Amino acid sequence: MITSTSNAQVKQLMQLQKKAREREKQDVFVVEGIKMFREVPRERLVQTYVSESFYKKHEVLFSGGLQVTVLSDRVFETVSDTKTPQGVLCLVRQYHYTLQDLFGSCPLIMALENIQDPGNLGTILRTAEGAGVTGILMSRGCVDLYNPKVIRSTMGSIYRMPFYYTDSWEEDLLELKKRDVTVYAAHLRGQGTYDAQDYCRPSAFLIGNESKGLTDETAQLADIFIKIPMCGQVESLNAAVASSILMYEANRQRRIKGLQGFGA
Amino acid sequence: MITSTSNAQVKQLMQLQKKAREREKQDVFVVEGIKMFREVPRERLVQTYVSESFYKKHEVLFSGGLQVTVLSDRVFETVSDTKTPQGVLCLVRQYHYTLQDLFGSCPLIMALENIQDPGNLGTILRTAEGAGVTGILMSRGCVDLYNPKVIRSTMGSIYRMPFYYTDSWEEDLLELKKRDVTVYAAHLRGQGTYDAQDYCRPSAFLIGNESKGLTDETAQLADIFIKIPMCGQVESLNAAVASSILMYEANRQRRIKGLQGFGA
Repeated sequence: MITSTSNAQVKQLMQLQKKAREREKQDVFVVEGIKMFREVPRERLVQTYVSESFYKKHEVLFSGGLQVTVLSDRVFETVSDTKTPQGVLCLVRQYHYTLQDLFGSCPLIMALENIQDPGNLGTILRTAEGAGVTGILMSRGCVDLYNPKVIRSTMGSIYRMPFYYTDSWEEDLLELKKRDVTVYAAHLRGQGTYDAQDYCRPSAFLIGNESKGLTDETAQLADIFIKIPMCGQVESLNAAVASSILMYEANRQRRIKGLQGFGA
Repeated sequence: MITSTSNAQVKQLMQLQKKAREREKQDVFVVEGIKMFREVPRERLVQTYVSESFYKKHEVLFSGGLQVTVLSDRVFETVSDTKTPQGVLCLVRQYHYTLQDLFGSCPLIMALENIQDPGNLGTILRTAEGAGVTGILMSRGCVDLYNPKVIRSTMGSIYRMPFYYTDSWEEDLLELKKRDVTVYAAHLRGQGTYDAQDYCRPSAFLIGNESKGLTDETAQLADIFIKIPMCGQVESLNAAVASSILMYEANRQRRIKGLQGFGA
């Protein structure tokens, strides 16, 4: 059992929690909690750490030959990113999807430009899996998806939703269009309402930064501007909320039309 | 100009930021930032505080006779609830809506049971205004709506969306039903999908706690259980996301039917 925070493994874990560069260098990310531990694909699991109390309580979980490293409760609290740690965290190997992986059988792609709030990005991934989105394309200005706060908000969808950070944002959007994906921009300048379009066809939704919206350069790459109507004096919706409304409108249309994978 | 954090007004402001009981006692709440300041209904404004830098930069804003108290930048940072304060905060008189105020002309009510996350509650209010919801009914177990984090996430909707914390949760739900409002519970046990119902009629959506969902006692008061279909391995959606999908489905139906106030 590791009982000191100056232990090399502990120091490394803390670096991995905090620094995107360190995670990238080691090609791993850190997940925390029982749900995230239970759902981790076994072939991606690099290492499991548990607190002493957790180990004593759940020893049976580790009887199947799964290697674990036990940390004293105090040390575990130090490496944990949460206020009330559940007592289990894992190192998981990073994903390396390509643009191609986002297409699925009938593309439904979220294209996120400079989404900055970790909770928003994680929530978009979680809802995207629920809505049947085929992949997430992200500009480099988006927050790191392996940030512990993002991972927590994904509630496990990080293991299952293909995503791709692109260094060639505009080129990749043009590539989508070339491959017959209609690119919609949720935009205040939108003429038609979002629910007047046909999302059973290959579709991508452009979502902009929380306070600045889409850049002009990106917006002008869209095929169609759409708007989510707003009553009262509301000027905009939260980025994760706007994304969710669009994704579930696509889900609704695809479900009604009986597209594969969209059964109720 | 106030330059000391031991000033009585400063101490009081800090209490009001932190303590729901103090806010209730004084019947005020604190809002921060330019947008929240600009939208505050003048008849509710009790007091305005600005930082010295803000005052110098925006002096013209206060030439119309609006009384302001200037704080040194350092003192302002101490009383602010945000990391990078914009330099203006106001005391605003609390709202005292009744159950009756939630009905509007054709009720579309969110009934929230024990929503705990301030960001979720604020986001629900913001989206509710956008979707044309007529009011928010809350169990006492919900987080305080005058919590600074909730207020920030409402983006001003707190000024416009009727809300009511009830001490008689079950009685009030029965009252809704008695008044011909159909009460829908978003629930994993839901038989039909959410989009197969008619929300042009008076409707209320029951939304449960983030981790525990609806209590059994509350769920059994619902007229109809509905579910939001989920692809993949998603077990549930974020509470604000689920609320938003339901509210905007109601908005979509009412807009298509041309109900008053729901024009695109």
